[in-house]
Amino acid sequence: MDKVIENNARSFDTLIDRIIELKNPTVVGLDPKLDYVPEFIKDKCVEKYGANLKAAAAAIRKFNEKIIDEICDIVPAVKPQSAYYEMYGYYGVKTLYKTIEYAKSKGMYVILDGKRNDIGATMDAYSAAYLGETDVFGQGEVAFGADALTVNGYLGSDCINSTLNVINAGCGGIFVLVKTSNKSSGELQDRHLCDGKTIYETMGDMCEKWGSDTIGKYGYSAVGAVVGATYPQMLSKLRQRMPHTFFLVPGYGAQGGGAEGVAGGFDKNGLGAIVNSSRAVMCAYKKENCPEKDFALAARREAIRMRDDITAHIAM
Amino acid sequence: MDKVIENNARSFDTLIDRIIELKNPTVVGLDPKLDYVPEFIKDKCVEKYGANLKAAAAAIRKFNEKIIDEICDIVPAVKPQSAYYEMYGYYGVKTLYKTIEYAKSKGMYVILDGKRNDIGATMDAYSAAYLGETDVFGQGEVAFGADALTVNGYLGSDCINSTLNVINAGCGGIFVLVKTSNKSSGELQDRHLCDGKTIYETMGDMCEKWGSDTIGKYGYSAVGAVVGATYPQMLSKLRQRMPHTFFLVPGYGAQGGGAEGVAGGFDKNGLGAIVNSSRAVMCAYKKENCPEKDFALAARREAIRMRDDITAHIAM
Repeated sequence: MDKVIENNARSFDTLIDRIIELKNPTVVGLDPKLDYVPEFIKDKCVEKYGANLKAAAAAIRKFNEKIIDEICDIVPAVKPQSAYYEMYGYYGVKTLYKTIEYAKSKGMYVILDGKRNDIGATMDAYSAAYLGETDVFGQGEVAFGADALTVNGYLGSDCINSTLNVINAGCGGIFVLVKTSNKSSGELQDRHLCDGKTIYETMGDMCEKWGSDTIGKYGYSAVGAVVGATYPQMLSKLRQRMPHTFFLVPGYGAQGGGAEGVAGGFDKNGLGAIVNSSRAVMCAYKKENCPEKDFALAARREAIRMRDDITAHIAM
Repeated sequence: MDKVIENNARSFDTLIDRIIELKNPTVVGLDPKLDYVPEFIKDKCVEKYGANLKAAAAAIRKFNEKIIDEICDIVPAVKPQSAYYEMYGYYGVKTLYKTIEYAKSKGMYVILDGKRNDIGATMDAYSAAYLGETDVFGQGEVAFGADALTVNGYLGSDCINSTLNVINAGCGGIFVLVKTSNKSSGELQDRHLCDGKTIYETMGDMCEKWGSDTIGKYGYSAVGAVVGATYPQMLSKLRQRMPHTFFLVPGYGAQGGGAEGVAGGFDKNGLGAIVNSSRAVMCAYKKENCPEKDFALAARREAIRMRDDITAHIAM
């Protein structure tokens, strides 16, 4: 893997290089509710800071770091979900920053799941925050320093173009919500437009267009798409329809998506998608009923099981 | 205005009470790029902390507080835009928290413009972060403590229902993106579904449905909508179509929307909408070319001008 350039988000090519190197097209979601953190970690933090947001954020940071330590040599990427840090206030957001920094220092690619969206100068601010640098008194400073960001495209090109300005400068990638994994995703996304296409197909076609000038060495652009594992037929059809769009596939495991189903998100070379699992990995120690102290090892075991489950179904 | 209950987001009824009391249906957007902050504030912060993210965040906090001091007796609400804080890292996010806290202590209603969106437990986390409380070691802690949150509805009811759980407990409101003010908003939002409705009309109808169990004393539900001032005809039609949905109207001023146009967003009693202006207020001192030291007074003058401009066109 390329040396981590701390101040620059890295492209999907870098991610795909690492997927090939590790023979593992999966990403571990870091969505750490305080309930998921073993008691012995929480106890230490409460002892140090009191039973407050600061202690919660400290406990989550420690939890994340131990999991990263155990999976960084077998899993190419992590996906922190921003909400689970924001809910612990600015202390939680500092833990988000520190988690991103730590994962990168261990060679992992970091997809920030923030589903950000806005227009013009405001989207520029999000792009600076997560993919680029912020101009502070005339010099560039890294605010969060992720490699890729999830984005909601309801506002159209004004939202996406701002991120493309950063991406075209060689920094990072985005994943646009196309067909999400939740039960009610069809309420809007599956509706048919008068041209016969569904809204999610329309959004998918827009992703292909938005990414067309950023296609990398594996044939995939810097504009990826989120397509849920819980709708395997749509996933397969979108793979055909969106040949240059790299997929982030949530919904495997806890949400009910199986390995056979996610296989349709991959191309004939076994590339083109990365499948996420969050809770099943973070809480593997609870499911295994192993000692709390071994939570990170249990996470590793589940990460290996997931890798083997998925790669058994694709032509990697 | 009701006494501020620090730990609970306040309803749209509270906001409308204050709009009536001040005869002012406007909100000042706090989107503080560092460029907007007067040099004398920045210089002090750089002297204290160095030319870094911490100094930037400190300067923005001071800038916001001075503007809030000057407008809190005439303007009912502020709308911090999350991106402009996130771009300054966790220091910026701390300034966001402190700005919300300060505005509430001065009796202002706080709409956090974060356009958040996700599903299930993740949206619960955003709801806790911005509208409710986070469970931390068995007790409720306020992470950010805003009164209302902007939300993107592309994911459907799974996204909105989570916020409704908090709202139905008497806390706060949401504004769902319906027809946004930007140029490319029509790329998706104006497309016609096969039933003849546009996507933005469909989203508007969903807002009416989502809010139907939360209608307050003025006839408006806790599920509001974002409708841009830059499309005045659509704004007027949506006012008719969505009689129980309170509107947040961006795009007045700098983006080109005029007072005559926004008038269509109000009902026959002069209620039903709140119009936002950000840059024109924050940067009024630059436009006036008055001494930097008077930036907050210039903001007050522009806030009064905006109030008078808009109320001249509605039946308040």
